[in-house]
Amino acid sequence: MEPVNLDESFASFDETWAPRIAAELNDYAVKVAKLDGEFVWHAHDDTDELFLVRDGRLRIEFRDRDDADLGPGDLLVVPRGVEHRPVALEPTEALLVEPTETLNTGDADESDLTHGDPERLS
Amino acid sequence: MEPVNLDESFASFDETWAPRIAAELNDYAVKVAKLDGEFVWHAHDDTDELFLVRDGRLRIEFRDRDDADLGPGDLLVVPRGVEHRPVALEPTEALLVEPTETLNTGDADESDLTHGDPERLS
Repeated sequence: MEPVNLDESFASFDETWAPRIAAELNDYAVKVAKLDGEFVWHAHDDTDELFLVRDGRLRIEFRDRDDADLGPGDLLVVPRGVEHRPVALEPTEALLVEPTETLNTGDADESDLTHGDPERLS
Repeated sequence: MEPVNLDESFASFDETWAPRIAAELNDYAVKVAKLDGEFVWHAHDDTDELFLVRDGRLRIEFRDRDDADLGPGDLLVVPRGVEHRPVALEPTEALLVEPTETLNTGDADESDLTHGDPERLS
């Protein structure tokens, strides 16, 4: 079996806020995403969402609790139903782990940022 | 919310082949594990299992296909039911993503390597 290399995965695209699927296990996916600046406020009513920062600085803002600041090697699980807004304070590379079909913009209105069917890199 | 730092997670224990739970999302866990030398042959009949190497060199041997060699930043999903044996060619730090209750030794006979209820680090 051929491993997936994360450096190669991140090098294969430039678009920000458009996760790609690097690997799938059962009905979950490891998605790779490039982030820069502010995303939209949203929540995922049906699932937790795991962020793991590989490079850069990612602030996750919350309506109802203190913000979380993540650097390389930091991970955070946003619980289901909790409204949040990712803000990359510099160009950032992050892994997301969540059910494959999770919509990146959650319950926010559809916009140019909405990517419903992420590309599979492998 | 407080992020979990992976360096701190790995620094918090020394035991090899004894995964700790760094974070949980839904009924899945991100486990951190230190590996060295050979593990036991086993399979997980009910779930895929994702390995992501953070440091070191990990060979995953298979009965029915070519081995996979993973270095830092390499990830591999072992499909459910596929017999495999992890062999760390040097001291290795790896993340595992799988359903929280997944037994580390799968369908192998219980032994000193079997850890049925991993410690939660956070």
